[in-house]
Parts: sequence; C-alpha cells; structure tokens
Amino acid sequence: MNRLFFLDLLSTIADRGREILDISTTGGSGGTKTIEQLCRDLLSGRGEATGTALAREVAQAWAALPPERHLDFFTTLVQAYSPDPEAVTKAAQAYTSAPDHQALARLGQVVEPPRQELIRRINMAPGGTATVVSMRAALGRLLRDHPELKVVDADFQHLLSSWFNRGFLVLRSVNWNTPASILEKLIAYEAVHEIQGWEDLRRRLAPDRRCFAFFHPAMSDEPLIFVEVALVHKLSDNVGDILSDAVDEAAARSASTAIFYSISNCQEGLRGISFGNFLIKQVVEELSREMPSLRTFATLSPIPGFMGWLKEQAEGKEPLFPSEEARLLLEATSQRGWHADADKAEALRMPLLRAAARYLAKARRGDMPRDPVARFHLGNGARLEQLNWMANTSPKGLKESAGMMVNYAYRLPEIERNHEALLTEGRIITSRSVRTLAAA
Amino acid sequence: MNRLFFLDLLSTIADRGREILDISTTGGSGGTKTIEQLCRDLLSGRGEATGTALAREVAQAWAALPPERHLDFFTTLVQAYSPDPEAVTKAAQAYTSAPDHQALARLGQVVEPPRQELIRRINMAPGGTATVVSMRAALGRLLRDHPELKVVDADFQHLLSSWFNRGFLVLRSVNWNTPASILEKLIAYEAVHEIQGWEDLRRRLAPDRRCFAFFHPAMSDEPLIFVEVALVHKLSDNVGDILSDAVDEAAARSASTAIFYSISNCQEGLRGISFGNFLIKQVVEELSREMPSLRTFATLSPIPGFMGWLKEQAEGKEPLFPSEEARLLLEATSQRGWHADADKAEALRMPLLRAAARYLAKARRGDMPRDPVARFHLGNGARLEQLNWMANTSPKGLKESAGMMVNYAYRLPEIERNHEALLTEGRIITSRSVRTLAAA
Amino acid sequence: MNRLFFLDLLSTIADRGREILDISTTGGSGGTKTIEQLCRDLLSGRGEATGTALAREVAQAWAALPPERHLDFFTTLVQAYSPDPEAVTKAAQAYTSAPDHQALARLGQVVEPPRQELIRRINMAPGGTATVVSMRAALGRLLRDHPELKVVDADFQHLLSSWFNRGFLVLRSVNWNTPASILEKLIAYEAVHEIQGWEDLRRRLAPDRRCFAFFHPAMSDEPLIFVEVALVHKLSDNVGDILSDAVDEAAARSASTAIFYSISNCQEGLRGISFGNFLIKQVVEELSREMPSLRTFATLSPIPGFMGWLKEQAEGKEPLFPSEEARLLLEATSQRGWHADADKAEALRMPLLRAAARYLAKARRGDMPRDPVARFHLGNGARLEQLNWMANTSPKGLKESAGMMVNYAYRLPEIERNHEALLTEGRIITSRSVRTLAAA
Amino acid sequence: MNRLFFLDLLSTIADRGREILDISTTGGSGGTKTIEQLCRDLLSGRGEATGTALAREVAQAWAALPPERHLDFFTTLVQAYSPDPEAVTKAAQAYTSAPDHQALARLGQVVEPPRQELIRRINMAPGGTATVVSMRAALGRLLRDHPELKVVDADFQHLLSSWFNRGFLVLRSVNWNTPASILEKLIAYEAVHEIQGWEDLRRRLAPDRRCFAFFHPAMSDEPLIFVEVALVHKLSDNVGDILSDAVDEAAARSASTAIFYSISNCQEGLRGISFGNFLIKQVVEELSREMPSLRTFATLSPIPGFMGWLKEQAEGKEPLFPSEEARLLLEATSQRGWHADADKAEALRMPLLRAAARYLAKARRGDMPRDPVARFHLGNGARLEQLNWMANTSPKGLKESAGMMVNYAYRLPEIERNHEALLTEGRIITSRSVRTLAAA
Repeated sequence: MNRLFFLDLLSTIADRGREILDISTTGGSGGTKTIEQLCRDLLSGRGEATGTALAREVAQAWAALPPERHLDFFTTLVQAYSPDPEAVTKAAQAYTSAPDHQALARLGQVVEPPRQELIRRINMAPGGTATVVSMRAALGRLLRDHPELKVVDADFQHLLSSWFNRGFLVLRSVNWNTPASILEKLIAYEAVHEIQGWEDLRRRLAPDRRCFAFFHPAMSDEPLIFVEVALVHKLSDNVGDILSDAVDEAAARSASTAIFYSISNCQEGLRGISFGNFLIKQVVEELSREMPSLRTFATLSPIPGFMGWLKEQAEGKEPLFPSEEARLLLEATSQRGWHADADKAEALRMPLLRAAARYLAKARRGDMPRDPVARFHLGNGARLEQLNWMANTSPKGLKESAGMMVNYAYRLPEIERNHEALLTEGRIITSRSVRTLAAA
Repeated sequence: MNRLFFLDLLSTIADRGREILDISTTGGSGGTKTIEQLCRDLLSGRGEATGTALAREVAQAWAALPPERHLDFFTTLVQAYSPDPEAVTKAAQAYTSAPDHQALARLGQVVEPPRQELIRRINMAPGGTATVVSMRAALGRLLRDHPELKVVDADFQHLLSSWFNRGFLVLRSVNWNTPASILEKLIAYEAVHEIQGWEDLRRRLAPDRRCFAFFHPAMSDEPLIFVEVALVHKLSDNVGDILSDAVDEAAARSASTAIFYSISNCQEGLRGISFGNFLIKQVVEELSREMPSLRTFATLSPIPGFMGWLKEQAEGKEPLFPSEEARLLLEATSQRGWHADADKAEALRMPLLRAAARYLAKARRGDMPRDPVARFHLGNGARLEQLNWMANTSPKGLKESAGMMVNYAYRLPEIERNHEALLTEGRIITSRSVRTLAAA
Repeated sequence: MNRLFFLDLLSTIADRGREILDISTTGGSGGTKTIEQLCRDLLSGRGEATGTALAREVAQAWAALPPERHLDFFTTLVQAYSPDPEAVTKAAQAYTSAPDHQALARLGQVVEPPRQELIRRINMAPGGTATVVSMRAALGRLLRDHPELKVVDADFQHLLSSWFNRGFLVLRSVNWNTPASILEKLIAYEAVHEIQGWEDLRRRLAPDRRCFAFFHPAMSDEPLIFVEVALVHKLSDNVGDILSDAVDEAAARSASTAIFYSISNCQEGLRGISFGNFLIKQVVEELSREMPSLRTFATLSPIPGFMGWLKEQAEGKEPLFPSEEARLLLEATSQRGWHADADKAEALRMPLLRAAARYLAKARRGDMPRDPVARFHLGNGARLEQLNWMANTSPKGLKESAGMMVNYAYRLPEIERNHEALLTEGRIITSRSVRTLAAA
Repeated sequence: MNRLFFLDLLSTIADRGREILDISTTGGSGGTKTIEQLCRDLLSGRGEATGTALAREVAQAWAALPPERHLDFFTTLVQAYSPDPEAVTKAAQAYTSAPDHQALARLGQVVEPPRQELIRRINMAPGGTATVVSMRAALGRLLRDHPELKVVDADFQHLLSSWFNRGFLVLRSVNWNTPASILEKLIAYEAVHEIQGWEDLRRRLAPDRRCFAFFHPAMSDEPLIFVEVALVHKLSDNVGDILSDAVDEAAARSASTAIFYSISNCQEGLRGISFGNFLIKQVVEELSREMPSLRTFATLSPIPGFMGWLKEQAEGKEPLFPSEEARLLLEATSQRGWHADADKAEALRMPLLRAAARYLAKARRGDMPRDPVARFHLGNGARLEQLNWMANTSPKGLKESAGMMVNYAYRLPEIERNHEALLTEGRIITSRSVRTLAAA
C-alpha cells in the first residue's frame, strides 16, 4: 500500500478549502430558482452537461432552506420522484406473464424511485455527501408526524448504507493531538456520559484512555461513531472509577483489561446504519496490536430495561421470576436513599443480582435478548460476563437498573460461536458466575 | 475543510500495510472452503457476526482462483443469487391488485438480486473495492461468450456506479514527484499515444505538460482515468509537435492554450462508468486557476469513423456527400504514400477537409453525432472547433481519417448551452471555419 | 519542491513515537552515572562509537536532574569545558609573532570552548534540540545570581542562533484545525493579552482573525513565537474592539487592514534570538497572498515607556517637553478615574497626544528610539503611523501610557528605506499626523 | 510526538512551490549588482532590514554565476571576509597580558571570520541551505589548484557540520513508492555498484532488498547518503549473488542476515562530514524492529588497499608478510585469467586469504587499520568477520584485492566494546576464522 501517495492524493480534496472558482455555467439561475426547480434541472439533461455545478447549487439551496420549507421539499420528493404506478403495473404484468431476465430487469428499473438518482447526483457536489446526510437528518425529524415520507427515508437509507459500507470507513484514534475542530464534536456528541468541557475531554484522552472513531473520506470533518475505552487492571465494576480524575500511569503502560465504557453515534442522518458492531471488533484488533498485555476486552454497560421488566414480573405478566419477590424488590427500591443504607442495600444485593441475571440471560423479545443493550452486544457475539452491584448510583442508574451494570466480554476467537449459538439455537452465552446467579 | 486531520485520518488506512493480525475467527475454514462456500457463509448469519473476516477470506479466495474457475463462480452468482421468481411473481401480482406503498416496497425488495448484497459484503474486506473491480474485469472477459452473465454484470455496474460517484473521486496532478509505483501504471495504461519507457514518461511530465488523474480513496494505488495535457501557444494542429522532445519553457510559464491530447481509462472493471466528462471539466477549472494566462482549452482528437463513413457515402448509403466524389477520395487515399506526395496531397486537402467537416457536423447516429469521439466531446458541451490537415500521419491516422484530426474546444461558459442545443434541438455547435467547410 | 515526499520523509521522525528499542550499547552505566560523567563519556571516544545512545542518556539524565543540581551542572560546564588558558596563551603568542593562516586557524580552534562540541553532541539525541533549549532556559534562571555562568550562556546562544537560523524555520498558520496539544500552548504562552481558556481561544481563531507561528523541524511540537492578527476595515484605534466577542464576517472576506495585536515569544531557552522581525514580514507576505483586499498592515502597540519619560520631563531631565506642562499632565492623570470624566479627558486629550508623539518620534536611547516597542518596530522598518486616544483603558494601559496606544505600519516597499533612514541618519519615519502632533 | 501536526507543519515549507510573491523591497538592485555587492549588502544593515529578500538575491546570483567566476567569488571571501589581523593581534596581546573571560570572549569574536556570518545569512534564503552546499561543492573543485581557499572551506565545513548535526537528520526508507524525482538521484549517485537504469533500480528496491537514506528538512529533495541492503539467508560471500536478478521471496519474509552491500555519499558539498557511521547503526535498529528474524548485520566490502600493500611486502618495506611469498603471489595474480584456471586459483586460495587476513588484521596507518574501508567499519565498532574468495571477479575487484571481499559485522551490543578496544588499546577485533588465517 502506497501510504505516501495516498496522503497526498487525499490532500487534494482537502485543499479545496481555497476559494473555488465561481464558474457561471448555469447561467441565469442566480439564486432565483427554488430547490425544487434546481432538482428538476439536475435530474434532466442540464444536470448531465454541467457536471457538478448544478449539484453544488442544490447543496447551497438546501443549506439556505429554512426548516419550515423542509416538509415541502420532501413532499415533492414523494410526489414527483416516485416510481410511475402505470409503468410498474405494466412491468409487473409483463413479468407475471413471462418471467424472464428482460422482464425482471425492466421491473427492477421501474420500481427504483427516480429520487435515488436525484440523491446520487446531489452527492456529486463538493461536500455533497454531507448534504445528503443532512437532508436525511432533517427528514428524520418529520417522519413521526408525516409517515408518508417513510418511502423517501427508505431511499436515503438504501443509498447511505451502500456508501457508508464498512469497506469505505476509516478507523482513527482520537487523542489530544487531534484538531480542536474534531475534538469539539466529541464533546457535542457524547451520548452516554456527558463530557463537561475541555478539561474533562482531556482526561478522557489521557494516557490510560483510548478513543476511536469511524470516519468517511467524503466527510472527513465528522466522526460517524466513537467509542471511549478505559485501560484498567481488572474488569471494571463501577463507572465512577472510570470517570474519576486520577490517571493510572501503570495502566497506560501495561493494562490487562480494556473497558468500552461509552459508544456514541454522531450522525442523525445515518441512523439505522450500523457501525457499532464493526467498530468494537476493529478496536479490539487495534488495541491487541498496540498493547500486547491486554487480555480482556469488555463493556461496562447499563441495563436499561431491568426495572420495567421487574414491574411486569410483579404483575405476573412474563413469569421468569416469582411475582411476589418482584413486588418486594420494587417496593424496597422505590424508597428514596435505599442504596445509601448499608444494611438495606446488603439485604437487597443478592435478590436483585439474581433478578438481573435472570432478566439478561433469559428474557426475550422474539428469539433475541429482551434488553436492547444486551441485544446489541450479544448479537455481536459478546458474552454476558459479570453483573456489578452499585455500579452506577446516579438517579438514572438507580431508576433503570437499581444501580446495577453489566460487563459484556468480547473475545475474538469466540465471537462467531457466540453469535451462531444465539442466532441458530437461541442460546445466550454467559459466564459461569452469571449462569449461577440466573439459575439460583 | 480540515486538511490536516484528513491527511492523518487517511493514513490510517494506508498504514494497514503493516502486518494484519491473523485472527482465527472463522475457525476451521483453513483454506479448504471454496469461494462459493465462503460467499454462502458471508451472506448468511455468519457473515454478520464475523464482520470483515469472512469478506477477507472471499477476497483471498478470489485472488487465488484460477481464471478457468471464473465461469463457475459467475455462473453460481446467476443461479444461486438471483431474485426468487416465485417471490417476484407474488409481489408483482400483489402490486397490480393493490398498487400501494407497501406493495411497491415489497416488490422493490424482491426484485433486487441477492448478489448485490453479496457484493456489498465483499466490499467490506480490506482492499474489497479493488476485489470487486477485479471481479467485474474478469466478468467482462466472459460476457461475449456467456451472455447469460449479463445480469450479473448489471449488478456489478449498478453498485460500482454508485460507489464511484463523482462525489467520491479525487482529482490528482500526476508529475515527476509522484511515486514510481503510480507512474509505472501510466506507462501501462496509456491507450492513445503509447509511452515508450521512463524517459518518454518524463517528457510527458515536463514543465510544459500536465497530467491529471481521478483516484478513489478505497483504491488509492490505482488511477481510474487520466488525461495528458500540453501547454502551447496556439491551437495544436499536429500531434507530432506534442509528442516531440523539445520542452517549451515559455509555454510552461505563460501558455495561452491547453491541449488535451490523450485520455485513457485504466480500469477494465469500471467500463461503462463515465469519468471523462467530469475529468475534463475539472481539469479545465484546475488549470484556469493555476495558470491565468490560459484562454483556450481544447482537445486534439482523432476522427475514428471518417473513412468508414466515406465508404458508405461512396456507396450512396447516407447521402450527405456526393457519392462520386467520395469514391474519388477513397481511391486517391488508398494509394500508398499519397500523403507524402506534395502535389497529390494538396489536391486532396480541401475536398477531404470538407468531407470531414460534413461528417463531423452533420452525420448522426440517432440524434447524436455519428463519430464516437465527437459524440463524447460534443455531448459534454464542447464545440467542434478546427479541422487539421496532416495532423496524424501514422498508419492508423491515415487509415481512420486520412491523417486529419480535429480540435474540440471546451469553454466553461458555453458548455451547458452547447449541450442543451445538442440534446434538445439536435444542433451541433461548430466554429465558423468548420461551418464554412461543412457547407462548402 | 517535492511536497509529497517531504511530508512522508518527515513523518519518519514523527513516527518515532512508537517504542524505541532499548539497545544496551552503553553497557554498565545503568543509571548509576551522573550527568557530568555521561557528558565526559559523550565528549570522549566512547561518544563517537555509540552514536546517539550516549546522547540520549545525557538527555534523560538532564530530564531527571532536580533543579537544585542545575548549578552544579553548569558550573562543571564552566570549569571543565572552557578553553585551556595555557593553550590559548601559546596560540595567541604564536599569532602575534607570526600572524599567518595556520596561526589564526590554531587560535580559532583553541578559543572555541569544548562545551560547544559537547552541546552539539547532546543535540544528536532524539529530542536533543529540545533538551538543549531546555538547558538554556534553566541556565537563564541562574544567570542573575551566578554571572560567572554567562560564558556558558554565550555558547548556548551561539549554537542555537545558528541552528534556529531563519532558513530552518517554518511558518505555520494556527487555527481551529490545529491539534489541541499545540493550541493549549498558545493559551500558555500568550504574553500580551491573556487568553481566557478555550472559548476565548476559539474567538482568537475565528474567521476574522489569523494566527501564525514559527516552528523548527526538530521541535515540531513547540511554537517558537506567534503573532495574532485581526482583520478589520480600518486602522484599529482600540484594543477593546479587537478582543470583543463579535465576529466580523465581512472582514473575514474582504478586510482592508490587518492588525498585529499580539506577538508572544514562547521559548525561554531561545531568548535573545530574534524571530519577530522575520515573523511579521513573512506574515505580511502570506496575508497579501491570501487576501488581496488587504492594503494596510499595522500593529496596535502599547507605549510602555511613556509615563516614565513624562516623569523625567517633569523633572526637567531630558528637555524634549516643557517640564511645567509635564507636571500638570502627570498630576491630572494621577487622579483616579480621570479618564472616565468626559470633560477632564477631553481637556487632556491633545496635550497628552502631543506629548506621546514627541516621546515616540524624538526620545532616544543612543541613536535608537527610546521606547522599547518603538525600537523593535521602527528598527524593523515600520513607520510610526497613528496615535490612539483611550485605546487601552485597563489599569496597566492607564499607568503606562495614559490609555494611549500607537499603530506602527508595515509597508513592504518602504521597509528597507525606513530602516536605513533610522540606522544611517537616525531619522524616525512618521506619518504626517504624528509629525504634526510631535511638532505642535 | 505529534505526527499529525508535524506533517502539516512541514508541508508549509513544501507548499512554497507555489509562486513566491516578487516583493520589490530591495529597490534598484534589479539584477545589476554583482554577487559580491549583494553579499556586502547582505552583511550590512540593509541585510538586517530586508530579511530574507537580499539572501534570496544572493542565492539567485550564485545560481546564475558562471563557473569561471567562482574563483573570483571565493577569493573575495578570503580577502574581504577574513578576520582583521590588527584586531586579532590586539586581542591576542590583550589576552596574553590579562587572560580573563572578557579577553577570551573578545578574542573569540575577532578570530571568527566574518564570512561565517555571511554564510549564515545566505542560508536564510528560500533554498538557502542547498545554495550553501552547492557553494562548497564548487569550492571543493578549486581547492587543489588554489590552496589559499582552504580557509574558506574550513568555514563552510564548520557551519555545515553544525547544521547537518545528526539530531537534524531524518532516516527514510527509499522504495518503489518513493517519488521518481528522488529515485533518479539514486541512479545518479550510486557510487559502488552502478545502477543500470530504472529496471535495475526496481530490482534494488524489490521485496528482498532495502534502501535507506538520510535527508535534511531544509533540503528534502536531496538524499545525503544512502545504503543498499540485501536480505539473505547467510553471510554473503559473493557480490554477484546480490546483484543478480532473482528476487528471493522467502528472504523478503524471514531473512536471517542483512548485507549492507553499497553505501554512497550524495553531496559533494558535504564531504568530510560523516554520516555513514550513524546511518549504518540506525539502519541496524530499523531493520531489527521491522524484521525480528534478522540475526546478523554485516557488510560485503571491498579491500581496496590489499594489492598495494602486497607490493610493499614484496619490496620488504613493512615486514608483516614474507617478501618472497608476496613476490610469488604478485606474479601469479598478474597473469591474465589466473582466477578462471581452477587449479591455479585453488593453489593461490589459502596463501592469498592468509595474506589478506594479515593485511586487514595487522597492517596499520598510525594506530588505525591501514585499509580505508576497514578503518571506517572497524572504527565504527564493527568486527572483521569473514574473508571471501572469488567474491568480486570484476577487473577492479581482481586488481585491488585479487577478487577477495570481506564482511564486517555490526552487532549492537559489541559496537562500543570493539570501538574502545581499537581506540584505546589499538586492538582490531576479528572473528576466530580471520584470526586463524591471520596467524597462519
């Protein structure tokens, strides 16, 4: 691989910061055309002729479009850029009467909404990919109230999934040498444990921490997703330790364990396109290479659905757990400050851990784990490793999961086996300790 | 734009040259699986779990596959990864009976061949994009004898068109500071005027020449298409001048005219995906910026279809030109060495120029210019500028076009207008001199 | 210039971040040797053999040396690494008796202190240049109490002046895309108008501001000196405007004037080596190129010596100004809040401006301007351009210069002429307005 | 180390390729001034004012100076920029009468030739370092006929030694991804085994070869010195194997031995400034890191002085070897084609190897090895490892050393010990096999 040339090659894009020639190829549009008119031009012959110039105008028009005009724009995409029902009907009938390659190909052509080609052409603009992602973010905000736009969203998602294929993504270590313009985005996007300004950020990037993000070459200013990692000496059972101030210099040199304590998606416009799966596995590879002392890779994760499930148990809805005991646990944990009362807490410790183990190891939605975080990590091939008492006593932690957290462990040689066991046999792979708790 | 970070970001990919950890996540495959089996795994649940590892195995299996096995592989892609006819029929019927969004969406899903998703997953491998392009190159070699593979080719082309969208391409100046590993590819790929080794290449990259190429970030070692430009003082009427040895230092500083004398596509696997259009226009922009003295941007192009057309005229097939005169011209130019006989040549000069002007300005295939090179440049919005006598007296030049060549001129402010005139009114825009010749 | 290769070339140094092999070439030193012993080894034959390994040990020993041992170390450099008086005497006598080339060369050799060669060898260590600069910074702190160390300081300065020759420095724009690790140094080093954390820094790097710094390739993490520039529409007469929050987007696009409002040296160890002169001129060139709308380049500078001079005038010491008027002005400006009283301030305006003009345009130290800031800029070829009333009403501004500030203007075509006029004729070049004030 | 920023930082220099503003700060010089006049200006006050502009003019004047004017220029440097004899005499007398710090400092100032400051100022020009190196190269060509210029050469060497201090050099791998503009310099500069064009070069950069060069940031287009390395499976005893065409893929992956088969200095202007010592050691470190399978690092070196020494032995001059035997060997090897006659060659094998062993292990110039190549490598701490029969049967190889070559081995842990043994005790460290031969 030609690293040298590659760097230079790509600086070409980046150098475009210099003033771009204002080339008046598009004649009299002069800002007087609406974005809808520009889109029509772009998809017509004019778009073919003038290359990226019209695409740039659409991108500029989008950037200038006030949010209250968004609905109009997307409605136009539904009304003017959907497949032609007559043509589809005709092609469908042709296929049913003679299902050959030609008929299939024809059918394939007419069912593809013309707005897909429109989106591909918008992408040709300088910064076009960011424009497309931004359009989908805006679209997402309208979907709930305007479900008729879902067909447009499907087209955006289809193209963006293809363009943000894993093969085009770049994993990058983010650290204190990273430009401030990127770092400030970490502060903005961190979704799990909020970053309190630059000093907090600096601690998150200290020698006993790591941060990795995926980037796309066509949107190099914007992280797509990032994960924060703590290098420690044993499986973390407490998020407070991780967020504390003291840098562990020894861990920076010879940690045995890497804890993935926060994963944040950054781009609203890319929701539904999954990067986390790839990110964790590649970061495991990267860290293995960088620090051979690492033996264990695990998350320290919340259990967001536990208390909700416990309520259902109390109501006897899904009988994985004695409803009477569930009721008692609910009542005990509903008392303000219960966790600070050592005796009370100690009395509740084993029953709650047992309940949580049962929830995580047995409760399902369909064939998959019921808890959404469990579903993500176990579906990725992780193992349900360890339950942690009093791991997150923030109000949110207490409310969601009675302060408990869980570690999911990623072991590269087991990932496929675990994943297969879950998918084909429905088995959730757990450590002995969790198994014991769940069975108790 | 954050040039700095972008460079570093991308060096991450490039640094992968270092040894990649051999992570045995895929268990016992150990090279004993065929590429077909690996593809099946990749598209199944196993592929989801093990991320890019299986994709890498497919890429390696492809690299090791002997050419005589290619047909098997692509045949499998036809047989095992085409849409399910039953499902398509069912969805087609459902749509015709109730043509709503759901039915349309369902129809769209079932008509997409599963091999598209397979190709998307192969792309996830390190170097996956190059693998996909290489597959399509191999496929292309089989198409003529195996037209049933065209449906597979259509899927490759569909995805590659999307992935090699103009918005993802990077224009790069190629010069004597470019790595040798890239430069040797220019020597290999130059299709118009062969490069005779490194010394010839150095002359093509001398100060009075420019060379630009498009690259894709996921295939940064490989130019996709490149154009060679000569900086000169007036519209070149002769390719010999351009290929000569003498460097014009004055032109290097203050040329008035940039001649695009050679455009070469490099990737067989990307045939049918058009880059030339974008390339020329962006190079015009780049050069305008770099060298404000440039006033004229034009090609010096062959006229590959002229003599064939003249034969048809002689046969009276397409009466744009008196058949008798055509016959005389054909006969005269069929004599060996006619062009070296000054008197003969002079006698033929005007008649042949008039014939060529008529051919270029009037002959059609459908509504478009009949000559393929004319079709490309005029379709891009260039103007038919000047006919050149004795411009290429190589055997090929004499045989194709009686030694004549033509300049197509690109003027940014006129490109759209010219293109529209051609597309909507069928008008070929020409200079006055060509118009006069064609009318004579 | 081969930009591409250059980048890669230099990344080689930078990649040294990866762990450096611990090569035990230096045998049993094992941390038991003092820095003095290591220096002796380094200057002996051992140093020649083991290349940079011993230099690295010296650098490490220096980094670990407690400040209270610094004096010992530098004292050793005086005592053990000074020229040999006997040898110098002998060579001096030889020269006086026969002043030929050989005698001169011999004399040159023996008068060069051996510690210069020691410092050159320390510089061979990875990070050696930073070590040498750090040594001189420490030395600087001892000089006042230990004037006998000045001879050592002279050697450090001699070598560092040569190594930080303008030809080796790199000018860099510093902006919001610069790594946080560099940006935090701006916060630390800003000496004129303190930067109040990251938000203030961001404002200093907003689109209507510029910041440039000099770096040295062997110390690429450390700015040497930086200048902050405000892009504005007219000669700034007020530092408050520059430090205010509102970003002037119009100025970012089409400013007529660039104000150099703060220049800060960063490296204590490089004091006495002048960069400011080169920095300003090169930034003028850079900005001219980037923004052709710029017509005026000027500082907005304090007048640190004005009130001190006015006191001397009041005492009749240096009769450039009537002592009686000086006394009145001193008394008026010694009243708390005088500047906030519109009537009082107005009454004092013209007399104080006249006094300041006379101070700047006429007061001398030797043949040079008496004010140290004036000395720097006028010595660089700037012109004394404009006096500004109520330009800096901070306590410091009032105390030093009754709230006045001054613009020095840099005009490339005049720089040499102005400089020559000052140096050869002792003339201070002023604008008409300042001249009028000074003469009044 | 902040790699990211460093890269960008340095691209700033490199970007200077773009046209530099012609800033007419130096008034009417307009090319009418001689280089001698420009130098005078540069060293005067004018030089201070106009920063690097005058230095640039001197650099341009040097580039345009015809070689026949070089002698004038350097003669001016002797006559007009030498120390003032009167001032030196006065300072020398002052010192002898009162040898204190002040007197010493004063003496140091006056003995430094003013041309050193002139050279420092020339270095400030863009490309100034290359100008200074080029001046010294030209000077070197004049020294033999004009020994009076040696004092000027000493000043150039003094400054260049300091500027090309090991701490400022960058080691770079050179390979097929290196820009053609650098690679062509390898072809030009290879001094040991000529490179026969691009194909030969490509073989020298094949996977079983390595090439490393030192560069200086201020002259990044120019290698200073480079070494070519062959990766092989055992100590090479034959240069033909190394220069052969067949690439050893196994060696590329798992060589046990790295053979340094060619070291070439590139810059005539840097002669006498030693880089080879550092280069070999750092390359040993680099390769150890890259390829842990490497156990042995050795040269395959010529023995340039052997036959000359043998002649002296024959004349009984330096009695390390029986003069009668020396005469016989000389006579036998003076017969054309002796080495191709198997019987003759076999008969001569042991006597010649013994003679060569004795030459290398015992013959001296002063306390150092007599053979110049031996002096270099043994002085660097290498060990005299193995003598090779029929290792280089080229005419030159036969003439210099009867076709024999020698390996010097570099073992990092022994380097210092070997060096010390040579320097302090005069012992040449040899392998047992060489010792046995030498003693026989």
